[in-house]
Amino acid sequence: MKRSERLVDFTNYLLNHPRKLTTLSFFSERYEAAKSSISEDLVIIKRIFETTEVGSVETFAGVSGGVIFTPSISDEKSQKFANDIIDLMKESNRILPGGYIYLSDILGTPYNLNKIGKIIAHEYIGKQIDAVMTIATKGIPIAQAVSGILDVPFVIVRRDPKVTEGATLNVNYMSGSSSKVENMTLSKRSLAPGQRVLIVDDFMKGGGTLNGMKSLVHEFDCLLAGVAVFAEGPFKGERLISDYKSILKIDDIDVENRSIEVKLGNIYQNI
Amino acid sequence: MKRSERLVDFTNYLLNHPRKLTTLSFFSERYEAAKSSISEDLVIIKRIFETTEVGSVETFAGVSGGVIFTPSISDEKSQKFANDIIDLMKESNRILPGGYIYLSDILGTPYNLNKIGKIIAHEYIGKQIDAVMTIATKGIPIAQAVSGILDVPFVIVRRDPKVTEGATLNVNYMSGSSSKVENMTLSKRSLAPGQRVLIVDDFMKGGGTLNGMKSLVHEFDCLLAGVAVFAEGPFKGERLISDYKSILKIDDIDVENRSIEVKLGNIYQNI
Repeated sequence: MKRSERLVDFTNYLLNHPRKLTTLSFFSERYEAAKSSISEDLVIIKRIFETTEVGSVETFAGVSGGVIFTPSISDEKSQKFANDIIDLMKESNRILPGGYIYLSDILGTPYNLNKIGKIIAHEYIGKQIDAVMTIATKGIPIAQAVSGILDVPFVIVRRDPKVTEGATLNVNYMSGSSSKVENMTLSKRSLAPGQRVLIVDDFMKGGGTLNGMKSLVHEFDCLLAGVAVFAEGPFKGERLISDYKSILKIDDIDVENRSIEVKLGNIYQNI
Repeated sequence: MKRSERLVDFTNYLLNHPRKLTTLSFFSERYEAAKSSISEDLVIIKRIFETTEVGSVETFAGVSGGVIFTPSISDEKSQKFANDIIDLMKESNRILPGGYIYLSDILGTPYNLNKIGKIIAHEYIGKQIDAVMTIATKGIPIAQAVSGILDVPFVIVRRDPKVTEGATLNVNYMSGSSSKVENMTLSKRSLAPGQRVLIVDDFMKGGGTLNGMKSLVHEFDCLLAGVAVFAEGPFKGERLISDYKSILKIDDIDVENRSIEVKLGNIYQNI
């Protein structure tokens, strides 16, 4: 195979195997090419992936060495995307009775979900994450997007146990906004002890739901790798959760005038 | 930019813009290269994408011409994947009381979802699809996977209206398995009249739920582009739906002996 042809397949291969170490011997055999040629290919791919901000390509020498592609998003692209979403969210017809915001179209578009997945995953580069956890229904697309970028499974917590889940582990949690005690449940076979779990959700108000998921992580003898939300809403009083990342922050929802105040979330605080 | 560098970016660009027509002028400007060079690049990419069965690359001449990449999966890879899933499904510990099968792990893994998305999308190559529809909760990952391959939005039908959905359109439907009349609901702003909608779900028994979604498509003045499920289960009597595609077909679930009979679905009937 010629270099030009190899590069097409090589690029495709790396994009489809994020965060996985692949040995140079694998590529050497795949392309019937010397390792030195493979290394030269990688120099080209690395340069282009870095200039076009697709992600990083790291090579490791030695017997257990190889190459790892880590998808990434630049601060600039990330912020531009978040600002585009802010513009969408300010559309007056999104505001629903009760001060809710219609987000289903935004969170039902592959382009947006891919970006959201990359932005959240980017916050945990270099950290080990074994699974992504979310709660049905609206968190699912975000969990799936993040898990696709990290190439790890996602698990779905529910408010009611379902017959298709088998034995479940249940916890009670205090809803931050309504101060009611509620229940959430996760199939017992979803997680193994010791796994590092990243919790994601679409929206945070008082943080009660996220806090419930944190206690689930604990009950499964797993470790918390982080908490990230698409948007945090306005909330008076103290949140039940303090250590979280948000892409957007909604400061005020004015139902009467159909306007919302929304700005970049804490992910962009130090940029 | 040299050809070798262009090919890396070009490959990445096409993979990230499935089913979209992009003009050669766009690439010519992007790479500051003559259109003839761009065409030569495309010949290489097309050859590799086709040999490695990543998808097809079509070029159209003329003023409104350009290039379209359509992700694809070969019959062989598709069948191999489906057979791998069959092996997983035969694991005895998946069978739950009541004859349900635990699938959450299979349908929570990015690798599987990507393949499922490609297999379903492949069935509708050449057809116009504007949106993918599913019902919460378990259909969501499949809808998201298919919509990612097709690069169109997905919409989520619910059994109960939620305050975050705004005005909804509701239909009653007859559950095929229990013969009960049930309700399903979709936000009014989810779909525009005339859109072509592909319905997907994880599991079909009597077909009542899918039939309900078909009537929703009708009530939105949309057109049905197709119906596809991950697996069809055993069902005695006549199904409420006849024109559907399935990846897997479960013939029997023997709870006592913890065994299931599962084979390839009707997608593979004519292969």
